[in-house]
Amino acid sequence: MNNLLIKALRQEKVDRPPVWMMRQAGRYLPDYIKLRDKYDFFTRVQTPELATEITLQPVRQVGVEAAIIFSDILVIPQAMGAEVFMEEGKGPSLPKTIKSQKDIDALNISNVDEHLKYVFDALLLTKKELNGAVPLIGFAGAPWTIFCYMIEGKGSKTWDKAKKFAYTEPKLSHALLQKITTITIEYLATQLQSGADCVQVFDSWAGALSPEDFKTFAQPYLIQIADAIKDKGPVILFPKGTWYALEDLSKSSAAAIGLDWTVAPQQARELTNYNITLQGNFDPSKLLAPIPQIKRWVKEMIDGFGAQKYIANLGHGITPDVPVDHAKAFVDAVKEYAG
Amino acid sequence: MNNLLIKALRQEKVDRPPVWMMRQAGRYLPDYIKLRDKYDFFTRVQTPELATEITLQPVRQVGVEAAIIFSDILVIPQAMGAEVFMEEGKGPSLPKTIKSQKDIDALNISNVDEHLKYVFDALLLTKKELNGAVPLIGFAGAPWTIFCYMIEGKGSKTWDKAKKFAYTEPKLSHALLQKITTITIEYLATQLQSGADCVQVFDSWAGALSPEDFKTFAQPYLIQIADAIKDKGPVILFPKGTWYALEDLSKSSAAAIGLDWTVAPQQARELTNYNITLQGNFDPSKLLAPIPQIKRWVKEMIDGFGAQKYIANLGHGITPDVPVDHAKAFVDAVKEYAG
Repeated sequence: MNNLLIKALRQEKVDRPPVWMMRQAGRYLPDYIKLRDKYDFFTRVQTPELATEITLQPVRQVGVEAAIIFSDILVIPQAMGAEVFMEEGKGPSLPKTIKSQKDIDALNISNVDEHLKYVFDALLLTKKELNGAVPLIGFAGAPWTIFCYMIEGKGSKTWDKAKKFAYTEPKLSHALLQKITTITIEYLATQLQSGADCVQVFDSWAGALSPEDFKTFAQPYLIQIADAIKDKGPVILFPKGTWYALEDLSKSSAAAIGLDWTVAPQQARELTNYNITLQGNFDPSKLLAPIPQIKRWVKEMIDGFGAQKYIANLGHGITPDVPVDHAKAFVDAVKEYAG
Repeated sequence: MNNLLIKALRQEKVDRPPVWMMRQAGRYLPDYIKLRDKYDFFTRVQTPELATEITLQPVRQVGVEAAIIFSDILVIPQAMGAEVFMEEGKGPSLPKTIKSQKDIDALNISNVDEHLKYVFDALLLTKKELNGAVPLIGFAGAPWTIFCYMIEGKGSKTWDKAKKFAYTEPKLSHALLQKITTITIEYLATQLQSGADCVQVFDSWAGALSPEDFKTFAQPYLIQIADAIKDKGPVILFPKGTWYALEDLSKSSAAAIGLDWTVAPQQARELTNYNITLQGNFDPSKLLAPIPQIKRWVKEMIDGFGAQKYIANLGHGITPDVPVDHAKAFVDAVKEYAG
């Protein structure tokens, strides 16, 4: 097996960093589009054969050195009892938002193995199909990010309603965040038992918070997850837009921290005291530049982070408009890296 | 005149900081809504009597200690020859985007006094109406942010197209950024001659860039503007989401730097070596919290920045859903501040 990713997560010496891309199984791939045009979103997510096929596409076609299971962070609200709709190109909607203690009490946090069996089946099947080629990554949304959707009911630029709820109902908010955390821990642990070699926690909307609010409503739950999971498998925390938390998180039980591109590699190393594996942080927009330029930037990025304790990745999901050969150039540039 | 703002910009000693709010003349005010329902956006912007009335509303009704002229950053592309449409609630659109050297060559950068006469007239009228009550702020969009709209043609989550153009056509990009900078300097200087006591430059989309790209495509033009304007009046630079540039900008000719809420007050002071006046950085979502909580947070914020070399403000524009008495509580809390 190409286990560069696991080595990097364990801080073992490598010749060069491993590479994968957030949203690597997605709309920039023509074969994904074909499946998207045939099956709706949750059919793709809930049918292990389809999820597996989609998960494997970028491994085969782009050469990424990890597979990340095709799924969605909103399967957790679903498992908790919420209805989630996904309209292609419009993002998710959850018609029944959380408003009261009663709403929170009604949320399910048990029988994850049953409710999300299709995810675990997809992991088992993907693991088998991968046949040891590359590691398999499981994932979940971070409690704060899931909270945002459950309160707001849909995507938002400002997450005003979610923040208003957090500010005016801190007790209810922490109760909800704790319930999400509890089920997420169970979910991630079961993913690790079902073939995932490591897991990533996506806190996509952490950047909407001030440093103090992040420390109140997001960080404690990320740390709780990392603490609970660390003996079961490596955890990558990706709280987008929270450069100020890097020092704290570098001391957590996480094996790695994901970074967006608003922090320079060298600065991220300094903020984390060179203590932890870092992942990221290529601006996906840069994949629209000419290939020779992409390759130069990748080399500069790796030079900046250093080849050790580092996982080459984007700073956010790859966008639909990236040409496949540009994505491949990104991957190839990492593979060609030589000090 | 209540000239606390000017004192803070000059780093003179004050008893407490001045306070104003970005987008203080806006949709959270019922009297603004009335004018909005009667006159379309550019009629409000281009009719000095309407712009003046809107500018004065928050001074009279909320008690802010500076007026900021009601206008829009996209008057600059208009003055350069671009058509700009503004659909209420949908944001701006510029049907003819910039694609080539020829497009850039065709852009006008002269006769600002004529093309934007309505802005200068609105400033003169507002200045007269204010009758010395509080200072008057003029403003413009930063070159990078204006570039984003001129390339992309409308708002964007990622500014993918603008960044692609910057990466693939750096020479054309710098030519365009320079043209925007040149006309913006003329525009800001004329605002200062027309009654503005200081000016603010909004780099709303600076945060889409990596630190290195900000230093390439945004920072040099901000600094060029600050250098050119500094002897004509104080300049506030507000490059949103660029904590990493604070040290550099604290050494620029700017009189103050605006901050969003993703940097803690104390940390912003450290990053700027206590050298420059800072403005911000209350999360507008926090105005949705109960009033006593708002007042506590404001006190904590001022404690964090210190009362000197500081302008109390939000970290981004006030949102339409903020109750007027909550906005007023924010302003009052600053006025009630006593060490």
